[in-house]
Amino acid sequence: MSPATLGSVILQATQSEAFDQIENDTLLSSSLWANIALAGLSILLFVYMGRNVEGSRAKMIWGATLMIPLVSISSYTGLVSGLTVGFIEMPAGHALAGEEVMSQWGRYLTWALSTPMILLALGMLADVDRGSLFTVIAADIGMCVTGLAAALVTSSYGLRWVFYAISCAFFLVVIYAVFVEWPQSAAAAGTDEIFDTLRVLTVVLWLGYPVIWAVGVEGLALVESVGATSWGYSALDIGAKYLFSFLLLRWVGANQNVVESAGTTTGSEAAAAPADD
Amino acid sequence: MSPATLGSVILQATQSEAFDQIENDTLLSSSLWANIALAGLSILLFVYMGRNVEGSRAKMIWGATLMIPLVSISSYTGLVSGLTVGFIEMPAGHALAGEEVMSQWGRYLTWALSTPMILLALGMLADVDRGSLFTVIAADIGMCVTGLAAALVTSSYGLRWVFYAISCAFFLVVIYAVFVEWPQSAAAAGTDEIFDTLRVLTVVLWLGYPVIWAVGVEGLALVESVGATSWGYSALDIGAKYLFSFLLLRWVGANQNVVESAGTTTGSEAAAAPADD
Amino acid sequence: MSPATLGSVILQATQSEAFDQIENDTLLSSSLWANIALAGLSILLFVYMGRNVEGSRAKMIWGATLMIPLVSISSYTGLVSGLTVGFIEMPAGHALAGEEVMSQWGRYLTWALSTPMILLALGMLADVDRGSLFTVIAADIGMCVTGLAAALVTSSYGLRWVFYAISCAFFLVVIYAVFVEWPQSAAAAGTDEIFDTLRVLTVVLWLGYPVIWAVGVEGLALVESVGATSWGYSALDIGAKYLFSFLLLRWVGANQNVVESAGTTTGSEAAAAPADD
Repeated sequence: MSPATLGSVILQATQSEAFDQIENDTLLSSSLWANIALAGLSILLFVYMGRNVEGSRAKMIWGATLMIPLVSISSYTGLVSGLTVGFIEMPAGHALAGEEVMSQWGRYLTWALSTPMILLALGMLADVDRGSLFTVIAADIGMCVTGLAAALVTSSYGLRWVFYAISCAFFLVVIYAVFVEWPQSAAAAGTDEIFDTLRVLTVVLWLGYPVIWAVGVEGLALVESVGATSWGYSALDIGAKYLFSFLLLRWVGANQNVVESAGTTTGSEAAAAPADD
Repeated sequence: MSPATLGSVILQATQSEAFDQIENDTLLSSSLWANIALAGLSILLFVYMGRNVEGSRAKMIWGATLMIPLVSISSYTGLVSGLTVGFIEMPAGHALAGEEVMSQWGRYLTWALSTPMILLALGMLADVDRGSLFTVIAADIGMCVTGLAAALVTSSYGLRWVFYAISCAFFLVVIYAVFVEWPQSAAAAGTDEIFDTLRVLTVVLWLGYPVIWAVGVEGLALVESVGATSWGYSALDIGAKYLFSFLLLRWVGANQNVVESAGTTTGSEAAAAPADD
Repeated sequence: MSPATLGSVILQATQSEAFDQIENDTLLSSSLWANIALAGLSILLFVYMGRNVEGSRAKMIWGATLMIPLVSISSYTGLVSGLTVGFIEMPAGHALAGEEVMSQWGRYLTWALSTPMILLALGMLADVDRGSLFTVIAADIGMCVTGLAAALVTSSYGLRWVFYAISCAFFLVVIYAVFVEWPQSAAAAGTDEIFDTLRVLTVVLWLGYPVIWAVGVEGLALVESVGATSWGYSALDIGAKYLFSFLLLRWVGANQNVVESAGTTTGSEAAAAPADD
């Protein structure tokens, strides 16, 4: 067997082994298929809900929101197929040191695509300025990418937690903006009622992800079941993605005039300029 | 041999084996080198054509269009070197099940960079609103990334087609916008003559990619030749990328005043605001 | 041992071997830890410096600038852990042909995230138009990605330099804009004093990266030490990232009124439109 063939065999074997292991673990596979089903239903529902949305801002919020379940269904199909799943040998110091633990690293990668859409929809709703929106989305992507690194480091137990700490530092930037700064913009835009609901939903549920990482198989392994850890993430996704999107779209559909009249801050520098002349 | 050395040997062997296999297959290698040559010529030609472009919108269209052959030459150099090529063992159910098939997975990755440039140039030309442009580009990236997943899944034949279906769903969003929604904006912007030519060129040629996937080695394998499949994609790229870009830039160069006067919708919320005061 | 387990062992062995090799090489590990320390200090300092920044444009510049050390600390933690480091067997023709050379490929990947932030901050400072900013950032990302490809090609010595040449072509676009075009915008915006300092700092230091690639272990290997090559990049990063950011933020903090009043061109089409009515 040539080295290239061996390499090909190894890569395919990892994917197939992950695929089989997921299929034979009811708890684990149900955590993935439940999200594929809910994401699929959400897509159909959201397309239907968006049929009458008019106006540039409302359509942009709708477009960003529709991407959330579309990215999600792709993400969970990747996990179920074993394509974005790997086996990690935990380093010395970890509770499962030396054991091979299934890592669903694809979750972190696709969160880097779906969570910016959530923040974009929230930011457009609150009519925040471009600088704030840009900084928060950049920090959010940083949070996901360093979370991915935390999951994949196997050379040192300490460095797993260093990446965890960096990821949490990015998260603090996001929480501060969404919880402290953006509500003021939302109040000015007249969208504070729905924004307050969504920011509480988002901040509370998003806080759950680092908690699950910390207690699950990738962190302290207080929960040693891959299936239970996976259900933790999947349950949070159901609330933070599909429920969030549904509440947002229902409100936007019923209040398009508020959304459109608010649309002045995002391009505020440009808008301000002629007024100054 | 240490495991780390073995890993390094395997990775390099895959790349070198792909490089050799491409070099020794005239049909396959000509499909790649033809595009490197045409992309190189296009870059030189487009830099020359852009020497007199003035105005923010025309320059942005020119910049996005120039990126198309630049990404393309990088993409094809990656394929020719074997860096972005792999060997996939097809799963049970596939016509070539158990055989190692060369996968040019780098194509899907670089399409995620080049096709947004095409849509950006088209959207700027038609002066569509920001919300629509954003949604269409996000759907386009989703189409490419799930196309990549469809090509790489080896654990299950059915899941290859599930990813294919998801990718086509993203594609429908793109087609609907470019074929049904954007022509209205182009008419309002006075760019409908060239836009109509380019959207027909784009939609017809882009429909060819999923057809080639379906009948080529990665799908039903009705065409079993890697070289013929590769030429299929390469021929489409020549029309959808270099010919498209040339027609667009020639028109923009000759109609800069139309392009500039159209530039009001992209920042429409900002522009509208002072008028409302 | 199953193929999947073997694959997992190989991947982890590469990471651990890189981690150990870095730890036991004082020159190499100091080049990485020095940057982690300086990036950490920069983050704390920049958060403090930004406490009084007001206004949409100034906050956006501050946000983009703060991302620079945040991406940098993530990047260097990835290198130190061995996660984004690999062993490359150089092809025939290379001075170290057949030898395994440590490649810090993670550098190229994270530059694709950090250098756009530098250009975004510079472009906002000079108040350049959106088309120019977009084209330059797209070219910059192209430069980093093809630099990554140049580092990873092992099938052909010639193709390493082809990717190097493509990367330099992208770099020319960036240099031309920052050195020739943007100073005119900065003069018009009244930010030319600080812009001139920063563009010289940026262009001079950025020219160092391709020089180090050419003479270091990845290119001609005139310098054969991985540690010395790594210190070359690390020293450039200290000037081009932390010193650059500090000078920029200090000036923005002291001149917020200039920054705000300049903010008319980025959304110029929108701003111009009502004035035309």
